Amino acid sequence: MTNLPTGMPFDDIRNLVRDLPGPDSEAVAACRARESQLTKPPGALGRLEGIAEWLCAWQGQHPPKAERVVVAVFAGNHGVVAQGVAAYPQAVTAQMVANFQNDGAAVNQICKTFGLGLKVFELALEKPTGDITAAAAMDEAECAATIAYGMEAIEGAELLCIGEMGIGNTTIAAAISHALHGGKAEDWVGPGTGVDAAGMIRKADAVRRAVALHASHLADPLEVLRRLGGRELAAMVGAILAARLQHIPVVVDGYVATAAAAILHAMRPDALDHCIAGHKSAEPAHAQLLAKLGMAPVLDLGMRLGEASGAAMAAGLIKAAADLHNGMATFASAGVSGKEA
Amino acid sequence: MTNLPTGMPFDDIRNLVRDLPGPDSEAVAACRARESQLTKPPGALGRLEGIAEWLCAWQGQHPPKAERVVVAVFAGNHGVVAQGVAAYPQAVTAQMVANFQNDGAAVNQICKTFGLGLKVFELALEKPTGDITAAAAMDEAECAATIAYGMEAIEGAELLCIGEMGIGNTTIAAAISHALHGGKAEDWVGPGTGVDAAGMIRKADAVRRAVALHASHLADPLEVLRRLGGRELAAMVGAILAARLQHIPVVVDGYVATAAAAILHAMRPDALDHCIAGHKSAEPAHAQLLAKLGMAPVLDLGMRLGEASGAAMAAGLIKAAADLHNGMATFASAGVSGKEA
Repeated sequence: MTNLPTGMPFDDIRNLVRDLPGPDSEAVAACRARESQLTKPPGALGRLEGIAEWLCAWQGQHPPKAERVVVAVFAGNHGVVAQGVAAYPQAVTAQMVANFQNDGAAVNQICKTFGLGLKVFELALEKPTGDITAAAAMDEAECAATIAYGMEAIEGAELLCIGEMGIGNTTIAAAISHALHGGKAEDWVGPGTGVDAAGMIRKADAVRRAVALHASHLADPLEVLRRLGGRELAAMVGAILAARLQHIPVVVDGYVATAAAAILHAMRPDALDHCIAGHKSAEPAHAQLLAKLGMAPVLDLGMRLGEASGAAMAAGLIKAAADLHNGMATFASAGVSGKEA
Repeated sequence: MTNLPTGMPFDDIRNLVRDLPGPDSEAVAACRARESQLTKPPGALGRLEGIAEWLCAWQGQHPPKAERVVVAVFAGNHGVVAQGVAAYPQAVTAQMVANFQNDGAAVNQICKTFGLGLKVFELALEKPTGDITAAAAMDEAECAATIAYGMEAIEGAELLCIGEMGIGNTTIAAAISHALHGGKAEDWVGPGTGVDAAGMIRKADAVRRAVALHASHLADPLEVLRRLGGRELAAMVGAILAARLQHIPVVVDGYVATAAAAILHAMRPDALDHCIAGHKSAEPAHAQLLAKLGMAPVLDLGMRLGEASGAAMAAGLIKAAADLHNGMATFASAGVSGKEA
């Protein structure tokens, strides 16, 4: 779909963000009208009622649909692993991509349980991005092209789950979060896949040095992305943006996916209104980043795996929310009495 | 299955509770051994790993299974509605049973989404239990027979979700909770299906009067059940008990189902170890009762509908937990590298 012309690619992305479509108020009104007739006390389905309404708002239709759900996992490698920030070797990124392709990873099983489609996108794994403590991760042309790749990856779903795989990328998420939301470097650093205390110190140090190195360029969120980000984060930015343009609501996974989303939020605070946080990760900084973005997670299961696993779990509940709204009888059709006067 | 002989029925129930089977430590060990080999960092699936282990412990087998999930909804009517404690007329209980049978209720849709089986049991709806502010809800023979009915209702599932329908039964749950766990009557009372402030005052007053009336008999949890309970609560006590004997883990729904479970907990603190709290209801006292029982809810979606809807939502996640444990590749089988030394 939307092709980015060559020339001034970041400006073209800025234009797309400036002109984002808003929610469909007619679909929301139709959703509320039906919701009030369903055989249950008003509000008794709690957040599931709001989710049905959110689907309508951003799909631009009533009834809401959540049959064709696509889980998109973007994989990238990171030069910053040279700083000793990761618990697993970089080769694991490609090994896990093969595991996704062979149906062996966690997200594959969740997709089977809930009938979700899985798409995996690997982004030049053999060529890690620049080490952000020493250079920019990407140049502008590469970053814009990767955003465009993410935009083109998304098509035809009723609901999109966004996640990632990339050894070292919780350090990337921490650097972006620190650049966008301040505080101290260590506030944004956690154990990731399981680094020890010394590894946490190396991570915080790498984040501090990276943000200091690029400090004079970080007022522009797209510069934050290209200097401190990774390819899978740039692709997720594109996917979230394309989903908005295509009227596809998005379930954002954990800390790394949320850090990608935070780039769009920094460009325009309502740019994530079509997104929901699938879960609160056990990675400690995730809750803090969600709070900065004003996002309330659907699930809190202590997961911290990435690969869209938390978003896919939430997608199961979102399918139920749509089925509830669409399938329940009304007081009139079921002959159930209403509230006493 | 287990038939209760006539004679001293409560004593027979006490004997069953005294001799409850415990968890299967070999199945748990087998579960942990496999879990540690799966292609993810240790602990990265958070609570889902513990749920797989819990299934093994109480099914007495590894691998855990959650294909055949039964959702059991027990419906009863309550004399205490004469005290003006309910927002809807008593006829709604039977109308909602018909709605369950016609696939129109919320729980029907959730069962379809996740492939769960639904069984609905109506318990003499035409003959409400005694008004607990003036008399015992049931005599011992009826209460024991209803527990036995609940025990016989359960058979052949790999996982059981327990819920209820009964206009007025949050007042019953409040009376049981107040009797078992003290505090003030109003601490255990909430809006239920949506009573107004005056209705809340009537509910708290009814709970206070009921507990005062029966006070001298409330040291015995089974007396609490027969005097303050309802038939659907007695049947849920039986179902939870029978599930333990039949090695079926149980997902408990909201406030009313948890109040039934609390009777067994009061008889023996580990009697609910095969149970998990499906969700935290928006009914305010539910969180407080779960804390008294030491139960951590899986979901917190602000639901407050009953009819096993919260338990059924959680069952979707529990199915995923079993699928994850059983379907994921191991590091060895997938050729994925382990943690760096």
